Amino acid sequence: MGKIKLIKFKLTTFKYEKPFHITGSISSQSNNIEVSIELDSGVVGYGEASPSFRVNGEKVEALLSLEPIINEALKGLDVQNYRQIFDITDKFFASPSIKAAVQYATLDAFSEEIGVPVYKILGGSKNKIETDKTVSIGSLEERVLDAKNIFEEGFRIIKIKVGENLKEDIEAMEKIYEVSKGAKYIVDANMGYTPKQAIKFAKEIYKKGIDIHVFEQPVPMHDIEGLKFVRFNSPFPVGADESAKTKYDVLRLIKEEAVDYINIKLMKSGISDALAIVEMAKAANLHLMIGCMGESSLGINQSVHFALGTGAFDFHDLDSALMLKEDKFRGKYKTEIPYHIAI
Amino acid sequence: MGKIKLIKFKLTTFKYEKPFHITGSISSQSNNIEVSIELDSGVVGYGEASPSFRVNGEKVEALLSLEPIINEALKGLDVQNYRQIFDITDKFFASPSIKAAVQYATLDAFSEEIGVPVYKILGGSKNKIETDKTVSIGSLEERVLDAKNIFEEGFRIIKIKVGENLKEDIEAMEKIYEVSKGAKYIVDANMGYTPKQAIKFAKEIYKKGIDIHVFEQPVPMHDIEGLKFVRFNSPFPVGADESAKTKYDVLRLIKEEAVDYINIKLMKSGISDALAIVEMAKAANLHLMIGCMGESSLGINQSVHFALGTGAFDFHDLDSALMLKEDKFRGKYKTEIPYHIAI
Repeated sequence: MGKIKLIKFKLTTFKYEKPFHITGSISSQSNNIEVSIELDSGVVGYGEASPSFRVNGEKVEALLSLEPIINEALKGLDVQNYRQIFDITDKFFASPSIKAAVQYATLDAFSEEIGVPVYKILGGSKNKIETDKTVSIGSLEERVLDAKNIFEEGFRIIKIKVGENLKEDIEAMEKIYEVSKGAKYIVDANMGYTPKQAIKFAKEIYKKGIDIHVFEQPVPMHDIEGLKFVRFNSPFPVGADESAKTKYDVLRLIKEEAVDYINIKLMKSGISDALAIVEMAKAANLHLMIGCMGESSLGINQSVHFALGTGAFDFHDLDSALMLKEDKFRGKYKTEIPYHIAI
Repeated sequence: MGKIKLIKFKLTTFKYEKPFHITGSISSQSNNIEVSIELDSGVVGYGEASPSFRVNGEKVEALLSLEPIINEALKGLDVQNYRQIFDITDKFFASPSIKAAVQYATLDAFSEEIGVPVYKILGGSKNKIETDKTVSIGSLEERVLDAKNIFEEGFRIIKIKVGENLKEDIEAMEKIYEVSKGAKYIVDANMGYTPKQAIKFAKEIYKKGIDIHVFEQPVPMHDIEGLKFVRFNSPFPVGADESAKTKYDVLRLIKEEAVDYINIKLMKSGISDALAIVEMAKAANLHLMIGCMGESSLGINQSVHFALGTGAFDFHDLDSALMLKEDKFRGKYKTEIPYHIAI
């Protein structure tokens, strides 16, 4: 028996090692919510919500206010019937990071009850994945130095944030390439370009002989026609992130043939929609990457187990815990070499 | 550790209580293959393939010949990494009933290793489902007597096979309705009608005030345009069975908006595609039913756990084991009342 006795929300704050700058947003800290689910048996499962106002419209104050409502909805349910809990928490779709944390804490508690790690409950596809690390927006010198350091740390997949200044972005890409030859690049505009700017960016980079493995979210989230236009006029695979939050979003992207890649983030979709998106993308021959918001090791743990269990991802952008100052590592995984995450 | 030591195929034959007649096919027995997966630990997991030449193009002789090849492909793998085994067996897509049995036996062995029933590994959505029972094709008197007996046994969902003679089918529906008022009907033409015949059938039945909850596979499997034509010109929900074998089939049906229902059968899809179809159908607002071929209790067990785990089905057509003569009941479920299946 694994009946839910009490669910607790706890606000936690983590400072970034240095401010994290992407299109339209600079963060110096991440305000997360730790979710714990205590069972009658005494077992406790943990999850973490890392809310995003920019992507999900979430405010941490509003999420914290849901604690008694979530308790009311789930108390007494058995975590062994985890799809029942998924179905109920799916109704909290306007607070997807809390939905994700509660759903994962459910799986974590189930896992502890039966002594089987979450990634095995989800299928145990892999026991090791490679994460990228991200170069945020900054001066040309900062961006190049960042990339150089990341490459020298041993990362061979580098994510590069662009989208605020087309000319500087092209210049930065060229200089970054010079200090990190051999790396694979994921370039993320976080909705910063118009479709035509995005195509110009892609063509210029292509002309310089630089390859981009995923060109993420070049245009605004609701511009699905724009995404498709970039996809069909760019030499690089185009991915949806902000445009792909729920399984319903992804079905539309599939029908419209708008993208090559989906970036799944548990904070946008929860476990339930993320599982659906994995299956839908594979049926539609789309490729997948997995990303994060500002999760600490507790939250990254969720995506690590999801990625290892489903084995569905070409790229893993799970670097937020590498960028946050944290007193105590709380993942049920280990970071073997700078760029590998393993069980 | 749950490493695969030996996989065995065993031909088993079950006689039908009476010949089972559907459009284009009369069966007096079901030739199935019992699949057992023995682990290093001594634990054994079981599955059952119930091949269909009509639907899947499978011949039991060809499936039996795969035993050494499947052993070669899977020996030494750990059932705890079940998605790895799913990925490998997905390549046996031309033998979907064997794929299903091997995939289920994997889950069954994993379940025995960890002491958690399969339906809980899959999410534990429900602990009880209601199955229908089927009236096969026969003389008007036989069909009505069958329906009367089924209704009197306590079944409240009755599946009615039609498709060989439009006029007789309409007459039979009317007479069956008279002896089973209060039952819900699933009507299955098994590809027997043309689109126009199917619409005529549906309209005639509608005029008589009889409701059909699912009008299954009115037209041939490859006639997706025909399915769609029936859907948009019939008062009843239209379902795909023979047209919906793989997740790729279902994606096409979704894109074409061809049906209201999908009938998932593990024998067509295996566990892997069935999981994908569940997720895709829910994202696309399609409804689901689950059906069977000629499985004994060992094979029906697979669909029972799948249905309870995912909780995805409006209707459960899991009656083959009720129609076969079997020496020993081998399901890890119980049949509580004639029409309920429970854990």
